[in-house]
Amino acid sequence: MTEPRAALSPGSTIAILGGGQLGRMLSVAAARLGFRAHVYSDAAEAPATEVAALAVRGAYDDLDALDRFAAHADVLTFEFENVPVSAAEHLSERIPLRPSARSLAVAQDRITEKMFLTEHGLPVAPFAQIDTADDLARALREMDAPAILKTRRLGYDGKGQLNVQPGSDAAAAFATIEGLPAVLEKRIPFSCEISVIAVRGLDGEVVAYESPWNTHAGGILRTSTVPAGVAANVREAAAKMAARVAEALGYVGVLGVEFFVLGADDADRAGPEARLLINEIAPRVHNSGHWTMDACRCDQFENHIRAIVGWPLGPTTRDSDVEMVNLIGEDALAWQDWAGRDDCVLHLYGKRDARPGRKMGHVNVLKPRS
Amino acid sequence: MTEPRAALSPGSTIAILGGGQLGRMLSVAAARLGFRAHVYSDAAEAPATEVAALAVRGAYDDLDALDRFAAHADVLTFEFENVPVSAAEHLSERIPLRPSARSLAVAQDRITEKMFLTEHGLPVAPFAQIDTADDLARALREMDAPAILKTRRLGYDGKGQLNVQPGSDAAAAFATIEGLPAVLEKRIPFSCEISVIAVRGLDGEVVAYESPWNTHAGGILRTSTVPAGVAANVREAAAKMAARVAEALGYVGVLGVEFFVLGADDADRAGPEARLLINEIAPRVHNSGHWTMDACRCDQFENHIRAIVGWPLGPTTRDSDVEMVNLIGEDALAWQDWAGRDDCVLHLYGKRDARPGRKMGHVNVLKPRS
Repeated sequence: MTEPRAALSPGSTIAILGGGQLGRMLSVAAARLGFRAHVYSDAAEAPATEVAALAVRGAYDDLDALDRFAAHADVLTFEFENVPVSAAEHLSERIPLRPSARSLAVAQDRITEKMFLTEHGLPVAPFAQIDTADDLARALREMDAPAILKTRRLGYDGKGQLNVQPGSDAAAAFATIEGLPAVLEKRIPFSCEISVIAVRGLDGEVVAYESPWNTHAGGILRTSTVPAGVAANVREAAAKMAARVAEALGYVGVLGVEFFVLGADDADRAGPEARLLINEIAPRVHNSGHWTMDACRCDQFENHIRAIVGWPLGPTTRDSDVEMVNLIGEDALAWQDWAGRDDCVLHLYGKRDARPGRKMGHVNVLKPRS
Repeated sequence: MTEPRAALSPGSTIAILGGGQLGRMLSVAAARLGFRAHVYSDAAEAPATEVAALAVRGAYDDLDALDRFAAHADVLTFEFENVPVSAAEHLSERIPLRPSARSLAVAQDRITEKMFLTEHGLPVAPFAQIDTADDLARALREMDAPAILKTRRLGYDGKGQLNVQPGSDAAAAFATIEGLPAVLEKRIPFSCEISVIAVRGLDGEVVAYESPWNTHAGGILRTSTVPAGVAANVREAAAKMAARVAEALGYVGVLGVEFFVLGADDADRAGPEARLLINEIAPRVHNSGHWTMDACRCDQFENHIRAIVGWPLGPTTRDSDVEMVNLIGEDALAWQDWAGRDDCVLHLYGKRDARPGRKMGHVNVLKPRS
């Protein structure tokens, strides 16, 4: 699982598939280390292109355009998990792709992901594969508990999701998600959500940042807070599980793993591992790691770049307590309030249109380390 | 001296004259606040263009090209002081130029600068204007002390400078600086050099970062260390002088002011002001302020952007002790050593050719605040 270390020198070119805010922050981190960042995006206005040495517009399934883009680069990475696996596999024959196409394949299909985790002894909520309305009706009867119906692919920020109950009309629910291949997940009453932002280097070293406590609204991350207020042994167990995921995938780069933390009452006797379920994995830098930009010497973006160029990983230690607040849609119109606060660092992504649900920026609210 | 505050909104465009590393770090700071950065440079490979939303190549005296460049921007600034004043004045009739063309005019001519400082009661070393070899011979006799001959214009990083003595051959010395208009400065035995990185907002508010202790080699800044190990009342006196410079210029943005600190023995009784001489002023972000990138919540680059777009200035408080080490020429080849240290943050400028004397990057070595 371990490639020989071959560090790229400053001045090398890093090609990034995807032009969103994650690509924007990756480009800046790459530039800070002396690399050139090239960005490929299918969108006309893409936040990452404003800080890239080269921006190319094209479709993610246009293999000729992707080949031309990758030809000038020394290493290729991606900032969102919906790059077609076939395109990623095609490119990886020509240029080192980190993380691998396999990481993408596992993460972009909820059934593949849950089966992968289960095979590796990692805990997930009970689930059923749904290909037809009949599958859904049967699974609802067998599960006999509140559940969530999610499309297998292309879901993010709560899109393609639907709450269902044992008595729900299966045909209507399946029609709501347009009859797409799906997974039914049992709703687990959890006490909170945390995540692990892990980094695996080209030499197989794995490090992780301290886990934040994450809150969501409308399926979208709102805040990530460190320290999380979750027992240290539970956080450590989560970090170990994330490292097992990274190792099992032969992963290189930053990996986000989201966890449900179950209440202490039910599961305490079985040890901290029994209080954790993996919600999902993201084969990329992760919104719940944005607090590292201002509370750590080496943030998740720099560590992703370090990993994929074969450099030693940077320190993940935290110098401050911090709450990351996402600015969603019109939240960003309050930029003057945030800019006027001495305890805040404001990050805006350069998006012109503050549409509802759109991630426009984030703020890190810093406090002395408790 | 105070313009009414009119804050530019995120999404506005900031045009930067100059494509070096200062422009690179300004572009990134602008992007972080949601602005578009456009960069104008006369060089083919310019570090700032790799992180700019738009890069334009042209000569600094090509008014048509400059007009086209500025036409798409909401505010114009510069990252080096050798933009021709006539071009700056021309542009400032079309677009807000911050800092002003006058700041540029004062700072880019050593005689104008020293006369400006003297007129405002600010201390400089004894000096004489040199237009001919005869002027130099006379000034050397009158000064009767070791001195430095410097060209009035276009000197930086120790270029265009020459040590001279009372008995030196004036004609030979003047020929060495190619007979250019010059200034003869008396060499003052000082105990150390410090600088003030001041910021003046559009509303006239002035703040400053804590003064670093600066060391040079071969005329080039090598290190800036905070805390400086200089008495607080001397540092405070320096900050007040820098604020007076900024106010006298009606300055907007970051201003670097370099000071010689004289030994306590000679001048103690006359108060801390008597221990300071202004060496020179720089109407831009300053190399001796690069430590703010990792030791402060809001660094000099963000504060320059905040000032020129009319935003409130950010906090200048310092969270760590820090030594900034410039990576000059082949110093940068040791990037692997710096990247492997947990107490360092490495910044490389993306320059391909590590020529002697060329600023390739810097490292901030952090320690807990003492």
